[in-house]
Amino acid sequence: MDLTGVYPPIATPFDGQGEVDPRAIRSNVGRWLESGVRGIVALGSNGEAPLLDEGESDAVIAAAREAVPSDRLLLAGTGRESTRATIDASRRAAALGADAVLVRTPSYFKPRMTTSALVSHYTAVAEAVPVPVLLYNYPAVTGLTLSADAVGRLARHPNIIGIKETSTDAAQIAAFVDATRDESFAVLAGSAPGFYAALCLGARGAILAAACVVPRACVALLDAFRRGDHDTARDLQRRMIPIAAAVTSGYGVPGLKLAMDIAGYQGGQPRSPLEPAPPGASEVIRAAFSAIEDHR
Amino acid sequence: MDLTGVYPPIATPFDGQGEVDPRAIRSNVGRWLESGVRGIVALGSNGEAPLLDEGESDAVIAAAREAVPSDRLLLAGTGRESTRATIDASRRAAALGADAVLVRTPSYFKPRMTTSALVSHYTAVAEAVPVPVLLYNYPAVTGLTLSADAVGRLARHPNIIGIKETSTDAAQIAAFVDATRDESFAVLAGSAPGFYAALCLGARGAILAAACVVPRACVALLDAFRRGDHDTARDLQRRMIPIAAAVTSGYGVPGLKLAMDIAGYQGGQPRSPLEPAPPGASEVIRAAFSAIEDHR
Amino acid sequence: MDLTGVYPPIATPFDGQGEVDPRAIRSNVGRWLESGVRGIVALGSNGEAPLLDEGESDAVIAAAREAVPSDRLLLAGTGRESTRATIDASRRAAALGADAVLVRTPSYFKPRMTTSALVSHYTAVAEAVPVPVLLYNYPAVTGLTLSADAVGRLARHPNIIGIKETSTDAAQIAAFVDATRDESFAVLAGSAPGFYAALCLGARGAILAAACVVPRACVALLDAFRRGDHDTARDLQRRMIPIAAAVTSGYGVPGLKLAMDIAGYQGGQPRSPLEPAPPGASEVIRAAFSAIEDHR
Amino acid sequence: MDLTGVYPPIATPFDGQGEVDPRAIRSNVGRWLESGVRGIVALGSNGEAPLLDEGESDAVIAAAREAVPSDRLLLAGTGRESTRATIDASRRAAALGADAVLVRTPSYFKPRMTTSALVSHYTAVAEAVPVPVLLYNYPAVTGLTLSADAVGRLARHPNIIGIKETSTDAAQIAAFVDATRDESFAVLAGSAPGFYAALCLGARGAILAAACVVPRACVALLDAFRRGDHDTARDLQRRMIPIAAAVTSGYGVPGLKLAMDIAGYQGGQPRSPLEPAPPGASEVIRAAFSAIEDHR
Repeated sequence: MDLTGVYPPIATPFDGQGEVDPRAIRSNVGRWLESGVRGIVALGSNGEAPLLDEGESDAVIAAAREAVPSDRLLLAGTGRESTRATIDASRRAAALGADAVLVRTPSYFKPRMTTSALVSHYTAVAEAVPVPVLLYNYPAVTGLTLSADAVGRLARHPNIIGIKETSTDAAQIAAFVDATRDESFAVLAGSAPGFYAALCLGARGAILAAACVVPRACVALLDAFRRGDHDTARDLQRRMIPIAAAVTSGYGVPGLKLAMDIAGYQGGQPRSPLEPAPPGASEVIRAAFSAIEDHR
Repeated sequence: MDLTGVYPPIATPFDGQGEVDPRAIRSNVGRWLESGVRGIVALGSNGEAPLLDEGESDAVIAAAREAVPSDRLLLAGTGRESTRATIDASRRAAALGADAVLVRTPSYFKPRMTTSALVSHYTAVAEAVPVPVLLYNYPAVTGLTLSADAVGRLARHPNIIGIKETSTDAAQIAAFVDATRDESFAVLAGSAPGFYAALCLGARGAILAAACVVPRACVALLDAFRRGDHDTARDLQRRMIPIAAAVTSGYGVPGLKLAMDIAGYQGGQPRSPLEPAPPGASEVIRAAFSAIEDHR
Repeated sequence: MDLTGVYPPIATPFDGQGEVDPRAIRSNVGRWLESGVRGIVALGSNGEAPLLDEGESDAVIAAAREAVPSDRLLLAGTGRESTRATIDASRRAAALGADAVLVRTPSYFKPRMTTSALVSHYTAVAEAVPVPVLLYNYPAVTGLTLSADAVGRLARHPNIIGIKETSTDAAQIAAFVDATRDESFAVLAGSAPGFYAALCLGARGAILAAACVVPRACVALLDAFRRGDHDTARDLQRRMIPIAAAVTSGYGVPGLKLAMDIAGYQGGQPRSPLEPAPPGASEVIRAAFSAIEDHR
Repeated sequence: MDLTGVYPPIATPFDGQGEVDPRAIRSNVGRWLESGVRGIVALGSNGEAPLLDEGESDAVIAAAREAVPSDRLLLAGTGRESTRATIDASRRAAALGADAVLVRTPSYFKPRMTTSALVSHYTAVAEAVPVPVLLYNYPAVTGLTLSADAVGRLARHPNIIGIKETSTDAAQIAAFVDATRDESFAVLAGSAPGFYAALCLGARGAILAAACVVPRACVALLDAFRRGDHDTARDLQRRMIPIAAAVTSGYGVPGLKLAMDIAGYQGGQPRSPLEPAPPGASEVIRAAFSAIEDHR
């Protein structure tokens, strides 16, 4: 499976009663796919996955699959705190048509999540699930980080094919690339402000909230890099930062959904305890869009 | 509801197939109650709650309720990341007989978990649930902390009756006590090494992993403090540290279960990705028990 | 040397040209001593010690000594990053009349500051200096913490007589007390919000910024505790928090100096890069004073 | 002043009596300069600057200047906690021949080190010192970070010409480059594992502990990058990591000095409280050298 490409981690729109809206998912996905992305990620953090129950999670995957043709990839977030719940969610995702699963590090018992425990966890998942597995490292949320040693060992498993690294630490991204260079394994960037640097270091693509609102800019950046045009890639990187910041560190998922509304997607309100983006966010987001207007 | 007292946050024993073992729960609870504790907490961190599914969670509460007579308290951990899942779990817990629910701060989207968002979340839960609500602040796991301002505001809600504060920060515990002094509201310590200090500052009791293995020592400490015997309380505090550390920072839940096995309870193995306590843990735990042997 | 008591860590007033003002130091010290404090600490963090050169440091100690009679204690902060500079500064302080020296953990090379390195450092200082040594643990500034093991080992040295612990972590304070209970060794609290709890745990006194502005309240708290009047001690603790917070976490040293001005001491401006307290600080400080007015 | 290039932050060798050894400094510097570096940095963290007194600091600069010809650059670390001590040290460094000064952020009073305070501090230094000033951001040591806003504002001062950024955060490095793109201002990497990524993002060079032991590899990496040979640069980056890690995160300054000894420089023992590198470090260092042997 060639993971090279850009993937929007899709937001989960809710209807007026606060229920998952499959129609809006299909509509959004259809439009994202027009921008040249390689596929999408359903049920990532930006999809408010931790706020959905198991049935809703399945509904999101099913709706996404309807909109993703077979030549594009549907990745599904299926990480849970227990190994068995992760396996169960991953199997269901595979049955619903996910091409691969993206499994966040369990973290509740973080002092116990040693390299040994994490390697055992991911190995058990990879053994039990009929589709390939991607690791997902997100230190800012989980408070722990996969070691390069763990990633190197897991990359040798034939059913573990990549990692999303959400930090922008160049040393860490390089270490993951270096630890897996003898394997067929893709490192994907997880933060727009580190996207270009990650590509330089050997990443093959990215899963970026920014790709939900400026997918063409993200694709253009990757294309420029792949044809050796560093200047264009770096310039796009710079101009992408304001909108990328607005929909992540700035206003979070509520900001992402607002930016989607502004950009003509169906975003809507987040689920509680998330609160809607504050007054004034619209203006900031519109200004941020303007820096990258030519690539929306 | 008078919360004054000691509460073991009960471990969840699994049977040979890795399934929740209700019989073992009832057996353990029966023995804990003989030690003079005020009640128990089911589905706390030490109960591996994040590793159980919704059906298992209900089964734990049901089993515990069978073993807890009506003059003792059954508190149930029902925190989820979304407000609606928290309400749903809390209502089910109440229906299964929980006397009150203990709701951990949602934390996945931590930069968005402002005082405003947390006050709204807890208020919505308190309004929707037929039993009283306790807040649960656990910064080491969640990466966020409830502000004294938030606690003070929430304490004014008639259905929010207390907080478990897991840190040992005397300034924070004092701030919570001071912010709620005009209300009927109980601060409960959540870490054995800070138990005595918390009592001095105005806490009414504690929810302690140590109370799963040395409940009599914990009860004796509280009794000594309540009769004004600071020296005895402080001495018990000191002697309790080694075993308390072994079953928390030292070996975590796997260590707690091992210590329970050693002490004659039914602990058993943790659920993956937690790994069993390492070789050598038994000796450390036995040595730690010896420092408080007279109060087991 | 009986360290039991309260110590203001004195601010260093500067004159109109920004130079150390010995006259103002003497004046302030004289007034502090009227309040019943056991002594003072010169050249602590609140004394802007890191902003003074070696000659200025000596001048502060000399001025303080003139104002501290022989039945009160003059402690001098003499920690430097290198062992030899620490020894040199400590010897000079002793020669200038300091009764003991307070030595902050070196921290620039924090990953190298193992228990072994810190024990060697403090032992070398204790061996070389003619007056007793107090350890000084200040994790919020240094980014490292002395382990209870290190403190326990160092307490066995006859020339190491105590520690100032600046955190409010009850578990840590208890661990230091417990690790040194067989020695003649005093744990002193370093933060007002943790003062009362520290006393309960076995601390003998405190070095508190708050003691620069409400010394009588601090002394009264200690006296109440020592006569077994926990209620009064706890009440004073609670009422002391607002002013203590204003002169530390709230506005820092600039706020301390402003509060001193308001209270009739000679505070003045801090040295750059510290900036004067912001507009509005005066009002906050005056309001905070009112909560503890009867003990100023 | 064209800062483009590689700079070893030179270690400070001590003689048998523990005193600064000017002869060894000159010898080392002479050899480093043969490798093609643009200049050197005296009195950085790796020079144990925080462990030297003012007179020793001057002696190091004087010795270095003797060995650095006028067509190479001598940068001197002159950051102190107070603005006036920083100005004083910087003026002395200029008088002793430093071409520019490198000023670490003051950090002791970190909660007060707002963008406003830091901009004022650096502006005052830049105004008062006759040579250009470089900012020095080292969050792992100082516990604070310069904001891109602060760097952007300071870059507009004609006497502030660059920054050493020690973190490997690609987002931060990019933000510094982007915030200063309209100015004549050089961002220099400060960590070998982030060197290549920093160059991609627009950095002009680096100040690297690794350059004290594998200067030719560092220069070759920069040269490869500048001629557009990303593959060679990235390969050198990868092979440089083991030795770079050994002399920084692995064994710190003691390891750097040991590696210098192994590589034929004069390293020697660190000053207390730093302890010599532990047994076994030699073997690790020798193995790390072998990965980059062809570029030593």
